[in-house]
Amino acid sequence: MPAEPDILLRTLTDDGVLRLTLNDVARRNALSEAMLSELGRAFTAAGRDSAVRVIVLAANGPAFCAGHDLKEMTAGRAAPDGGRAYFASVMAQCSAVMQGIVQCPKPVIAEVTGVATAAGCQLVASCDLAIAADTARFSTPGVHIGLFCSTPMVALSRNISNKHAMEMLLTGDMTPAPRAAEIGLINYAVPAAELTTTTMEMARKIASKSGMTLATGKRAFYAQREMPLADAYDYASQVMVENMLAHDAEEGIGAFIEKRAPQWQDR
Amino acid sequence: MPAEPDILLRTLTDDGVLRLTLNDVARRNALSEAMLSELGRAFTAAGRDSAVRVIVLAANGPAFCAGHDLKEMTAGRAAPDGGRAYFASVMAQCSAVMQGIVQCPKPVIAEVTGVATAAGCQLVASCDLAIAADTARFSTPGVHIGLFCSTPMVALSRNISNKHAMEMLLTGDMTPAPRAAEIGLINYAVPAAELTTTTMEMARKIASKSGMTLATGKRAFYAQREMPLADAYDYASQVMVENMLAHDAEEGIGAFIEKRAPQWQDR
Amino acid sequence: MPAEPDILLRTLTDDGVLRLTLNDVARRNALSEAMLSELGRAFTAAGRDSAVRVIVLAANGPAFCAGHDLKEMTAGRAAPDGGRAYFASVMAQCSAVMQGIVQCPKPVIAEVTGVATAAGCQLVASCDLAIAADTARFSTPGVHIGLFCSTPMVALSRNISNKHAMEMLLTGDMTPAPRAAEIGLINYAVPAAELTTTTMEMARKIASKSGMTLATGKRAFYAQREMPLADAYDYASQVMVENMLAHDAEEGIGAFIEKRAPQWQDR
Repeated sequence: MPAEPDILLRTLTDDGVLRLTLNDVARRNALSEAMLSELGRAFTAAGRDSAVRVIVLAANGPAFCAGHDLKEMTAGRAAPDGGRAYFASVMAQCSAVMQGIVQCPKPVIAEVTGVATAAGCQLVASCDLAIAADTARFSTPGVHIGLFCSTPMVALSRNISNKHAMEMLLTGDMTPAPRAAEIGLINYAVPAAELTTTTMEMARKIASKSGMTLATGKRAFYAQREMPLADAYDYASQVMVENMLAHDAEEGIGAFIEKRAPQWQDR
Repeated sequence: MPAEPDILLRTLTDDGVLRLTLNDVARRNALSEAMLSELGRAFTAAGRDSAVRVIVLAANGPAFCAGHDLKEMTAGRAAPDGGRAYFASVMAQCSAVMQGIVQCPKPVIAEVTGVATAAGCQLVASCDLAIAADTARFSTPGVHIGLFCSTPMVALSRNISNKHAMEMLLTGDMTPAPRAAEIGLINYAVPAAELTTTTMEMARKIASKSGMTLATGKRAFYAQREMPLADAYDYASQVMVENMLAHDAEEGIGAFIEKRAPQWQDR
Repeated sequence: MPAEPDILLRTLTDDGVLRLTLNDVARRNALSEAMLSELGRAFTAAGRDSAVRVIVLAANGPAFCAGHDLKEMTAGRAAPDGGRAYFASVMAQCSAVMQGIVQCPKPVIAEVTGVATAAGCQLVASCDLAIAADTARFSTPGVHIGLFCSTPMVALSRNISNKHAMEMLLTGDMTPAPRAAEIGLINYAVPAAELTTTTMEMARKIASKSGMTLATGKRAFYAQREMPLADAYDYASQVMVENMLAHDAEEGIGAFIEKRAPQWQDR
């Protein structure tokens, strides 16, 4: 009997780009408990692995990710409490994975083909950057099944304007990738044949930077975003001072002034 | 002597779409005290009426809504306090109506023809969704008359980016509907001849969903929007758990798995 | 020996438009300590000068502004503390200048030619409005030199969506002016030959308004932006009441009703 195939594939390039590929094609890459565990572990491990500089999140099959596993969720109803404890546990696990992407010190780029729906759309919205095939589509269709996409909307509404978010949430309609690019859910929609090349080019560009600098900047970005302006400036100014005093800024600025390539310590 | 015509018309379709139509054409549908009272009552009543599933806010005449009634406001100056108490009362009433739209458990769609100015533009910005004729125009022109559109900007700046909002506020210029769609003030600009059809199609689509689910989601959307990310996830996760335990989610998920149409309890 | 040329030029039109022009062309208008001092003083003075109604911030030379002066910063490393106190002082000074633009009671319009990078891009993002030549370009390239643009991102992320901001910050790539207009970093990209005409036309339009009204509105805009919705409405309603009771609103509304041009007290 052959071993069950891995539901999350990992490949690491020589230049530090980790490709995580959702590979539970039969389940449309649903965020089952098993998939959430794999993703959580993968982002935590990648965050700590100095060989990983940038993460690309991709998927095999026609669906990028179909969101929660509804059959698993339905089975949870059999518990004496009707599923309350189980649902709370799954939601906590899922929210931890999404916030783990935001907290991961390495930049994360979604490379989207096919449909990204519900928590699958949330996954894309939670990444720092997203590039999609122009045939990809996005939706938060919970409203069709009586279950509003309330956790997906946390990530969605931090990327796109209120009226665009409400349209997706209230209608459940599909948003084609070109429209998703217009409203800011993704950075770019590109021809499917160029998707991986485009994503990997951006990933490699970012991977060539100082890892310390990327980690500092990513953390500071999401932290200051939630502060009033004056607090944000106080905080970001402190971040800049510490960054200036770090090796890689001294090296990078020196290299820039001397017109040579920098040698990062933190790679 | 004929009775004075209603300044706010109500029609309810069989499928639960309530059309509220501003009908004080002679006053360009200004938000007089009378109109604010009518609107406040209408949204409160619609929120409680189980026959109403979605609300469309439309208008008769060349102006969607001209904002506050300046003659009424000016008359208020005759009071011993120069109008202070009166102005405070009108502003409180108007802000309550605008927040009443946000708090209304039923989705609200603005269907805009003509010009929506000052508090009229705020009315559009306060709705969950907005579709306009491509000939419609929007402005916050208070700056022309020495009265900055400070309350309209609360709604405006929660829909569009700072520089776009400041341009409208500082210049008072008209923004044509196609530009309003680009900057996110409205969802779509469509040919005038197709406006009502487009709006009603979207309204009916939303009206076919579970009302419990729509109410849950709309409330959660605006609540989580004001929270830091971690709090938003904690809150939205709880909302999801309660939603999962409600009848309509069990029914909707069951129907989805069994490939049949759901029968909502809450209609 | 000729006197050193001014690094910040000032010209004031008869109709109250102050043009501040960065003029340290040899240093690509870097935000040296001297330039930050000049800018800080200029915005403070302009805020108090009743002859100034609107400020346009422009630049001479191929660079609008290259951000911090890296040679000056590097020289700061020679101090016994490695530059810590100096860097903290420069960051505090720079953040004060940026917030000074936001706090300035007069509207500020950036008129951008050439490249605006790092804190130079922050300068544009900090202005109330921005118009650029379609050949202008914007970037936050600190990541190239190991120094993430953490203070620039405070202003950047209050203008554009998360994914667009992260793209600029993580890649350091140049954003051409037409794309900057699409994502909301600037209001418009126009042909270079029409830039000053376009900017001055907008400046003069705004300068014709009541200065009291503009100051009231600008302050209220940024204040309410950071409040929850209900607080924002309470605050903005109070602002409206005070504004209604001021001379220029009475005059402006009276002039509107009487169809004559208003005579502002506050000019």
